Amino acid sequence: MAELFSDEYFMRIALNEAANAYERDEIPVGAVIVSNNKIIAKAHNLTETLIDVTAHAEMQAITSAANYLGGKYLQNCTLYVTLEPCVMCGGALYWSQISKVVYGASDPKRGFKAKIGELHPKTEVISGLLEDECGEIMKSFFQKKR
Amino acid sequence: MAELFSDEYFMRIALNEAANAYERDEIPVGAVIVSNNKIIAKAHNLTETLIDVTAHAEMQAITSAANYLGGKYLQNCTLYVTLEPCVMCGGALYWSQISKVVYGASDPKRGFKAKIGELHPKTEVISGLLEDECGEIMKSFFQKKR
Repeated sequence: MAELFSDEYFMRIALNEAANAYERDEIPVGAVIVSNNKIIAKAHNLTETLIDVTAHAEMQAITSAANYLGGKYLQNCTLYVTLEPCVMCGGALYWSQISKVVYGASDPKRGFKAKIGELHPKTEVISGLLEDECGEIMKSFFQKKR
Repeated sequence: MAELFSDEYFMRIALNEAANAYERDEIPVGAVIVSNNKIIAKAHNLTETLIDVTAHAEMQAITSAANYLGGKYLQNCTLYVTLEPCVMCGGALYWSQISKVVYGASDPKRGFKAKIGELHPKTEVISGLLEDECGEIMKSFFQKKR
């Protein structure tokens, strides 16, 4: 059991969101946004369900969190996401000026790192948390699809 | 008067959307998406009104167009947008596999070109259409703000 309010604790909740996506036959990526140890947004990928390429877990979480906070800048917030954000989500995170991003599995092909390198100067980035579990659910999904 | 269904014709409608944003005190960027000479989505920047950094004109237009088409890929579609898309919107356009993007003013600081270089290999990009008018409305907006 992960220590309460640790990075692992919140990433396990993001993993649970990814599992929800998996069950809906969506590419299994999950995200949560936390402010002062409180989860203010939870989301999973819904691109197929909503027929919308912009409906990535992170995008929905950013919109929900800003809605909750009543402000568009996600200061003192941390995003936990099971997969390295893509260029679109990296761009959105840049605009949000979010304080911290923690992701699980890397995505060397579609992730933001290879394309844009970094996020906002105000954003701390931590990678590889629960990397194996976050990667495993993706592998399992694509194996099932073959 | 621009020739019917020419690139300029549709960009003038995008400029009209930008003017709508200006009137709402939003950074004046407008976008339309056209399929077979039919406008299937029109949008303008709403980041302040919606308190949402993801509410760029292009993002809303992509979502609307996919909704209209009932499919998430924007094949045979052209986006007309008054300002060079940012990294977020460039990433979304990549996922959409849109056929053509026509933009007006360049955005050397925040535009996709400097950061990610290109969009999807299936996407033709045309820049600088009505560049002066598209840039002028931005300049006027920021001068007013000072």
